[in-house]
Amino acid sequence: MYEYDDKRLEHLREAAKRHLWMHFTRMSTFEEEDLPIMVRGEGAYVWDASGKRYLDGLSGLFVSQLGHGRTELAEAASKQASTLAYFPVWSYAHTPAVELAEKLASLAPGDLNRVFFTTGGGEAVEAAYKLARQYFAARGKHHKYKVISRNIAYHGASLGALAITGLPAYKEPFEPLLPGARKVANTNEYRCKDCAWKGSCTLRCADDIERVIQYEGADTVALVYLEPVQNGGGCFTPPPGYFERVREICDEYDVLLVSDEVITAFGRLGHYFGAERYGYMPDMITCAKGMTSGYAPIGAMIASDRLMEPFLHGKNTYLHGITYGGHPVAAAVALANLEVFEREQINDHVLANEELFRSKLESLKDIPIVGEVRGAGYFYALELVKDQETKGLFSDEESEHLLRGFLSRELLDKGLICRSDDRGEPVVQLAPPLICTAEQFDEIIEILRPVLERAAEMIVS
Amino acid sequence: MYEYDDKRLEHLREAAKRHLWMHFTRMSTFEEEDLPIMVRGEGAYVWDASGKRYLDGLSGLFVSQLGHGRTELAEAASKQASTLAYFPVWSYAHTPAVELAEKLASLAPGDLNRVFFTTGGGEAVEAAYKLARQYFAARGKHHKYKVISRNIAYHGASLGALAITGLPAYKEPFEPLLPGARKVANTNEYRCKDCAWKGSCTLRCADDIERVIQYEGADTVALVYLEPVQNGGGCFTPPPGYFERVREICDEYDVLLVSDEVITAFGRLGHYFGAERYGYMPDMITCAKGMTSGYAPIGAMIASDRLMEPFLHGKNTYLHGITYGGHPVAAAVALANLEVFEREQINDHVLANEELFRSKLESLKDIPIVGEVRGAGYFYALELVKDQETKGLFSDEESEHLLRGFLSRELLDKGLICRSDDRGEPVVQLAPPLICTAEQFDEIIEILRPVLERAAEMIVS
Repeated sequence: MYEYDDKRLEHLREAAKRHLWMHFTRMSTFEEEDLPIMVRGEGAYVWDASGKRYLDGLSGLFVSQLGHGRTELAEAASKQASTLAYFPVWSYAHTPAVELAEKLASLAPGDLNRVFFTTGGGEAVEAAYKLARQYFAARGKHHKYKVISRNIAYHGASLGALAITGLPAYKEPFEPLLPGARKVANTNEYRCKDCAWKGSCTLRCADDIERVIQYEGADTVALVYLEPVQNGGGCFTPPPGYFERVREICDEYDVLLVSDEVITAFGRLGHYFGAERYGYMPDMITCAKGMTSGYAPIGAMIASDRLMEPFLHGKNTYLHGITYGGHPVAAAVALANLEVFEREQINDHVLANEELFRSKLESLKDIPIVGEVRGAGYFYALELVKDQETKGLFSDEESEHLLRGFLSRELLDKGLICRSDDRGEPVVQLAPPLICTAEQFDEIIEILRPVLERAAEMIVS
Repeated sequence: MYEYDDKRLEHLREAAKRHLWMHFTRMSTFEEEDLPIMVRGEGAYVWDASGKRYLDGLSGLFVSQLGHGRTELAEAASKQASTLAYFPVWSYAHTPAVELAEKLASLAPGDLNRVFFTTGGGEAVEAAYKLARQYFAARGKHHKYKVISRNIAYHGASLGALAITGLPAYKEPFEPLLPGARKVANTNEYRCKDCAWKGSCTLRCADDIERVIQYEGADTVALVYLEPVQNGGGCFTPPPGYFERVREICDEYDVLLVSDEVITAFGRLGHYFGAERYGYMPDMITCAKGMTSGYAPIGAMIASDRLMEPFLHGKNTYLHGITYGGHPVAAAVALANLEVFEREQINDHVLANEELFRSKLESLKDIPIVGEVRGAGYFYALELVKDQETKGLFSDEESEHLLRGFLSRELLDKGLICRSDDRGEPVVQLAPPLICTAEQFDEIIEILRPVLERAAEMIVS
């Protein structure tokens, strides 16, 4: 049933080439290579249509917290779909949306009590951006609309979120974009040039935010958009004191702090929200992916009571909506997913195992191209370098050859799904399902080591 | 099980008020009124938590084509969720996405063969807008980025789609928006001032598009964005020859024509796509809602072969993606939904019954405030007027009082869900599930007639 015969497989591959426009994908790749068509999942593993097994080292796309094949989540979907498959949260409510909103409010820090549902992360970012603007407009501050985010950070691809995204190459074909989106330094400690001469971190990266607010004028800046651990560039963790300083700056200039937790929420860092791990209190959290462990599409913008206050009275209305936001089936699946989180103590499992995972990855640092291992929880990046001592950079061609020409193909061939990424410096990213144990960590290392060693030889020779 | 006791109902209502930020909803409404919390659906009906039954005259939000409680769609969801609940279509494919892409390409007109999946309609609009821009950039026409759409048309609320949306009140708090989004006349024949003196339509509304292209400069305009029947303002159908003329204009100036079929596709107008009904060939179609009859969130941008051509070679990549776009469970549900469409000949059913539905609605024209009945398929609007002869307009306060103060509340109270809308002139919109027959049409009229008659008396007195 799951392993297709040659005829069906050939038909699917042709149909995929002919009709499926894949996302962020260089389509010409599949002129030479076979397109992997996934058909089945179980725990941390997925199988393609030819019967080949892969370790899902990226949790699909940072979503499959509980792993694949969880029948209790499939049953929750089925039950809700046959009871009430759809109703909008426009002027009406439905039980799963209300219960999930209540649940998320109870898990979110402080007074983040107001839940606006979307179908995913990018839409949650759009919702936060729009809310910040309308919130200040409602307070009479119509010029407070600009947004500050970090270099190389990805916050989504729709045209509002794209302005916040800090990857110029992703934006250039779509210019002119929304006005008023400014970028600041990220927390790339490995290559930080600001404080290196001082011997220790001065939080220049945090102060960069204040500088930009001053350059732009505080009366024009609405929000600062940050991930607890930045994905783009490869798992940049914050230096000690970073978020404390950012919170101070935001308070001083009446600017909202949004914690983009599309990747980091729901156990990825061993907590429900990354803001807890790093001890800061944002004005909004945006989240999605892990909320259902990928079993159904949903996302949310969770805002503080203060932000909803102007919209509770008279004719005031937050002018935003999405037909499928808070979909009943997706909300029911999210509730079932969070029940499993509690029952199986997923966050504790991650906190108990993250050091083991890190130490296994760090064991690869004897390979000459492994420059740094960084991250937290079940979310790590290995930065690849030409030379460990000098942290030497690859040329664009070398990076292209190394990542696309060799690593991606080779790791997939050996049965490991992970991300070889060069949006910043080249990294290999790993974010396995949160149910993984030493067994999967060992398997990851067993595949990574010989492939990275061969890559190192290719680079040196 | 479905009817909640007072304690649970009270708890849910409080939790909803406290935590659920509803979409496009004036939250203060629920200080005085009870919030309806929906719990169950069956066919064309839904029930709230107090056990009250409603006829779902809006198909949720133009989505529930096959009606509620379809166990075959719930089973399709469950089966796919326990097999492979999630995998991205970023560099990989999965069976349901490939099969659905193939299916949609076979249903879409002409060479619309390339399917980019999203999670809903707004995201499909973002995808089309971005593709138009990158397509022209790839052809070296970097300044061809502007978009033309129609007054009062709604195309989505994310910041890219919002620029295309033609409702100034929805946009004002979020200015400055994306540059280069221009508006033209819609096809409101009932209140058309352009051709009235000539006694027949001159297609001035279509020519308006050419005028704007000339004003802006054809080398700066990338796309024209139109619904086959415009929802915003209340089911504006195109005059004969409209789309033929628009297609000519687009061809003459090398501008892409996008058919926004988020509402009109999948049987709403008795065809898979509205472009078929009106006999025009767009360069892209955007669709969503009815694709799964609401049982799971998915949407798509379907593009012609010509538009994908620049992205098939070398390093060229369409720079767009959405984690949950083409979600395996949603794609499997869409396939099951389209199977039912064929098995039960849903399109034929709509075409066979639309005139009956229209005639029932037109029987209401003896009520003095019913100005016009317009629409097609299972998609109609009644425009309300102060005076039938003069087509007299209500003041803002009258409209507020009529729609929000009386009609919405009263129709809901009597058990009919529909839309009382004043984004243009006040209309009552009806778009029931496509399985409805004379029985539901009669029920709609039985509720509408006395309520509209009372409204008419209120207005006159």
